[in-house]
Amino acid sequence: MFEIKIDNARYWKSCVDSIVSLVEEGTFNITKEGITLKALDPSVISMVLFSIPNKAFSKYDVDKPTSVGLDLTNFAKMLSSARLEEQLIMKDSGNKLAIEFVGPLGKRRFKLPILDIKKEPEKEPKVTFESTIDIRGDTLKEILKDTNFLSENVGFRTEKNSFMVVAKGDGGELEEEYAGNSESIRKLDVTKPSSVTFKLDYLQRIISACPQDSQIKMSFKTEEPMRVDYKIGDADVSYYLAPYIES
Amino acid sequence: MFEIKIDNARYWKSCVDSIVSLVEEGTFNITKEGITLKALDPSVISMVLFSIPNKAFSKYDVDKPTSVGLDLTNFAKMLSSARLEEQLIMKDSGNKLAIEFVGPLGKRRFKLPILDIKKEPEKEPKVTFESTIDIRGDTLKEILKDTNFLSENVGFRTEKNSFMVVAKGDGGELEEEYAGNSESIRKLDVTKPSSVTFKLDYLQRIISACPQDSQIKMSFKTEEPMRVDYKIGDADVSYYLAPYIES
Amino acid sequence: MFEIKIDNARYWKSCVDSIVSLVEEGTFNITKEGITLKALDPSVISMVLFSIPNKAFSKYDVDKPTSVGLDLTNFAKMLSSARLEEQLIMKDSGNKLAIEFVGPLGKRRFKLPILDIKKEPEKEPKVTFESTIDIRGDTLKEILKDTNFLSENVGFRTEKNSFMVVAKGDGGELEEEYAGNSESIRKLDVTKPSSVTFKLDYLQRIISACPQDSQIKMSFKTEEPMRVDYKIGDADVSYYLAPYIES
Repeated sequence: MFEIKIDNARYWKSCVDSIVSLVEEGTFNITKEGITLKALDPSVISMVLFSIPNKAFSKYDVDKPTSVGLDLTNFAKMLSSARLEEQLIMKDSGNKLAIEFVGPLGKRRFKLPILDIKKEPEKEPKVTFESTIDIRGDTLKEILKDTNFLSENVGFRTEKNSFMVVAKGDGGELEEEYAGNSESIRKLDVTKPSSVTFKLDYLQRIISACPQDSQIKMSFKTEEPMRVDYKIGDADVSYYLAPYIES
Repeated sequence: MFEIKIDNARYWKSCVDSIVSLVEEGTFNITKEGITLKALDPSVISMVLFSIPNKAFSKYDVDKPTSVGLDLTNFAKMLSSARLEEQLIMKDSGNKLAIEFVGPLGKRRFKLPILDIKKEPEKEPKVTFESTIDIRGDTLKEILKDTNFLSENVGFRTEKNSFMVVAKGDGGELEEEYAGNSESIRKLDVTKPSSVTFKLDYLQRIISACPQDSQIKMSFKTEEPMRVDYKIGDADVSYYLAPYIES
Repeated sequence: MFEIKIDNARYWKSCVDSIVSLVEEGTFNITKEGITLKALDPSVISMVLFSIPNKAFSKYDVDKPTSVGLDLTNFAKMLSSARLEEQLIMKDSGNKLAIEFVGPLGKRRFKLPILDIKKEPEKEPKVTFESTIDIRGDTLKEILKDTNFLSENVGFRTEKNSFMVVAKGDGGELEEEYAGNSESIRKLDVTKPSSVTFKLDYLQRIISACPQDSQIKMSFKTEEPMRVDYKIGDADVSYYLAPYIES
């Protein structure tokens, strides 16, 4: 039995968006401490780790750890009906998740079937990263948009004092260079220069839920999976993305 | 012979939008009193009744009752060219309707063939309604949008003091409850509780032309056609929509 | 060897848009005086003549006349990445055009292959025009939009003191009339009334890059190609468009 209340329904929608951008279904683990979710995308190229502490909620009654498997696409659609100034209550109701929006104009109650999702997500990749950068979310979104028409892949290179983005295709090539400790790149730590390429589409989905003006932390090692971290309010979202290696 | 002038061409466009959302062609009946139109949609599930009094027009010269059958889709496209501050003059011109926009920058004259539309629309359904509600147009539009991803149908239930909207599909279910005499529901008259389901798509088209902030009146009886009424300025628009009955 | 710098990268983007709306590839001729381009569209119905003087650029080092053939579609996509307050530097780099955006946040360097475009564009049509009009760009855009649903062609008629636009299709007909020396038509010179029809789609592409509020000059002669001229800042853009003659 649990009953969880959040004062800003639209905030919870943005949390779920950070998951549904990669996976269509997943299992929330609800414990006394908070809610977590870990899932691999269907193509097994990327992994999302979501976690939000109980303090993010205005009411958080959880008597025992519970797993709630959901069709996240439908969950996100329900949540997108959130109006301004609406609160959200989630509780279990038999084999369904009851979602109640409470606002000045009335109540809306959705019910979403709870699914038994078998597959256990794989372990997180173990990588000793050699470069990390802190970059503004909107800067990274613009950079990725620049490369869009050139290639399906985008390369990242780090050096002692610079972060470089490269893309190359039949139509031309692009190289962007950003200095560390600049307005866009607040922090750049390079123990060893890294060079690694990723599928652009996945990267764009991974950062799509990052709030405007938020910082994104990217961690690299040459030809290894990257890790992406950002915060959505009190929630922590992390992703792993496998490198693209030309065959 | 008629010549009808309207000071705000865009207003007349919004009137025609309330008809063209359901039917592609129809016959305007132009009498000394005003203009009316009654038409069934091609699938015979819904009916629109439009009427506007002569006082809505700044010039209204009609010497005898006239029928003007039009391709309403093309009529609406012509009207969507209306610019700010343009006046509109409609008159008969042989077997065509002449439409003249007069604005500060010049004149635009459209001509639209007058069609001989045979089919007489059926009689209006006779229903002794048991529930009526007055709801804000934008509230109803939001409610219908909420149900969109769940089902192609939406159910309405009325009780003494509440109005309920229900939708159910494989992806989940939704129940919204609104009290009478609230900000959204200004009036709720229930002589007998009603329960009836409609095709969502038709309902959305029926209310699509309702001006922002206008009131919509809905009248129900269990498993009978509903009636929807709203005003667009001086014009009265009414619709009947057959209930959806699961086979 | 050339190095050309423009202080407002987005301005240069709007210049290239005026070319790419008609042709997918073309050759810039870069001389000490400035940059020109002449190209026929692939269907050989229209021709664009672009020219911009060296004074439009904040740095203009050109040691000898050079031809730079480009895939203009890709060039335009690169240029659309221009951010606010970015400068643009173009220079040759082997068999590529190097394009560098320099802004407050960092540098972006694109490289675009230089193509060897064989076909020499035909000579400009020689027409002794009989009517010319100066019309506001946004007025002409609205006029063409009005005719959109009626026909794929649009007719222009000039008379001593009026400019008329006509379109006719199965769905109806349209006639717009504008007086000379009005707010929309600043100048109307008619030595002989003209009547000529053009493909709407081409006309819309020709004027698509005309800045808001700019004047467009159109020159006509009955059943002859028209000429369209407008300015984008210091750049002059001219087009010829063959008349549409019903077969």
